[in-house]
Amino acid sequence: MRQFIPPDPDYARRVRDNFNQQQLMKTIGARLVKVAPGEVRIEIPFNLAFTQQHAYMHAGIIATIVDNACGFAAYTLMPAASEVLAVEYKINFLLPAKGDRFIGIGKVIKPGRTLTVCEGRVLAFEQDQEQLIATMQATSVSLAK
Amino acid sequence: MRQFIPPDPDYARRVRDNFNQQQLMKTIGARLVKVAPGEVRIEIPFNLAFTQQHAYMHAGIIATIVDNACGFAAYTLMPAASEVLAVEYKINFLLPAKGDRFIGIGKVIKPGRTLTVCEGRVLAFEQDQEQLIATMQATSVSLAK
Amino acid sequence: MRQFIPPDPDYARRVRDNFNQQQLMKTIGARLVKVAPGEVRIEIPFNLAFTQQHAYMHAGIIATIVDNACGFAAYTLMPAASEVLAVEYKINFLLPAKGDRFIGIGKVIKPGRTLTVCEGRVLAFEQDQEQLIATMQATSVSLAK
Amino acid sequence: MRQFIPPDPDYARRVRDNFNQQQLMKTIGARLVKVAPGEVRIEIPFNLAFTQQHAYMHAGIIATIVDNACGFAAYTLMPAASEVLAVEYKINFLLPAKGDRFIGIGKVIKPGRTLTVCEGRVLAFEQDQEQLIATMQATSVSLAK
Repeated sequence: MRQFIPPDPDYARRVRDNFNQQQLMKTIGARLVKVAPGEVRIEIPFNLAFTQQHAYMHAGIIATIVDNACGFAAYTLMPAASEVLAVEYKINFLLPAKGDRFIGIGKVIKPGRTLTVCEGRVLAFEQDQEQLIATMQATSVSLAK
Repeated sequence: MRQFIPPDPDYARRVRDNFNQQQLMKTIGARLVKVAPGEVRIEIPFNLAFTQQHAYMHAGIIATIVDNACGFAAYTLMPAASEVLAVEYKINFLLPAKGDRFIGIGKVIKPGRTLTVCEGRVLAFEQDQEQLIATMQATSVSLAK
Repeated sequence: MRQFIPPDPDYARRVRDNFNQQQLMKTIGARLVKVAPGEVRIEIPFNLAFTQQHAYMHAGIIATIVDNACGFAAYTLMPAASEVLAVEYKINFLLPAKGDRFIGIGKVIKPGRTLTVCEGRVLAFEQDQEQLIATMQATSVSLAK
Repeated sequence: MRQFIPPDPDYARRVRDNFNQQQLMKTIGARLVKVAPGEVRIEIPFNLAFTQQHAYMHAGIIATIVDNACGFAAYTLMPAASEVLAVEYKINFLLPAKGDRFIGIGKVIKPGRTLTVCEGRVLAFEQDQEQLIATMQATSVSLAK
């Protein structure tokens, strides 16, 4: 994995501020567990309020944390006066989201002045046994603020 | 758009039962507003608890309703003793999710014994002005129950 | 489907020039059969040189014509002094590419100053019986020339 | 990356036979340069006959080799009496396909009895300088022969 040098040394604060402004992150109990140049990790606990028909976490919430992790990973490499928006993503669901906590991991594959491409992974943890349950490919766009 | 004949005449009840078992649908205030052979529509109201940094609905929730609409659209054409699972989807976000209510529309493009391909659209309504804000392509799998 | 007004009245010539510069289009015998604002169609004949293990047209060639049709559909709505590049696409293969000719159809769903989103379809014709064999969702970017 | 044990010890011959039956692989001068459990690599030389408007290799041909590499990677882990078909893929183009040769790499992320998910990468080589030019996420299906 490439080493990236963020153009904005204050990138982590910028990511955290944006994260904290997202009401949905509070609602689902999400925490930013890693903010590094080109990589961000978001963790959520299991919560019955966000489940599907078998009482596993809903695919939509799983997609949400890894989409956000990808967007923020891209944002770590964007300039100070920028905003990040999701252009599109594609996600494959590999296993049901069974577990007591879940981590969405976003990593930059190719940063760009306008477009950044990331790869995402979601891990499910059940009594600390870890399983890869989803994989994503995502494009983000940088906008001047 | 093709006319589809569901192999299970009781398809609508099966979709509604599954929908009602999804705790997340209750949590976000979702309603099934259309269940027809090969087409399902899910509506949610704006809710600050599910927003991103600009207080628009979060992309993850928008993806959730259209992913579910696609899965249920596929499910309308599956046999009585089957389950439906999301294999993968791809979504493009066209505009911010600004509005007072949102409808996710899933339509079957190609039904299959194992795999069904759907196309999804999300409409945002603001004082009854409608805008297309997202488009999806999704694959579902049918499993024997 | 929306009516689009191209900012460059000479859009069709610009598309045809670009098409004619693509050596691959000549190699596979492709023809531009429709160039309209927001919609382009590309046709190829069956050719054994471009087949897979069952002597049907290879998925890669099927993807090529619809990817190009999407890119050119986007290009019809871009300014005169612009270039178009494929950012990404997603394609579902619905049926084997069995037929004597194939048409890739690209339609703009959402034009934009930077990014344009298109939907693509591929039809296979066998003795004038038509079948939908693939569906695409594609993003193109406009660059100043 | 996980170690995979192929159910069919003769997996490599099966992949090579299928590859050799694809007329398109001959036409573009493709060679199978790696066939290992869960990983396949396909190389092509630059060829003007398969280029786009700037005389770089066409995105469609780049997609073709990595799509095939993903399909064959999945096929290495399928049973002896099976066939592999591409269900769908998503590709991001990171850089123009500039180079004198190109390698498409397919790796299995999650094998399955029915569906296998792979990740693909394309490297371009120019005087042995290597660049990552495309990234793919692909789903294949196994069919009984």
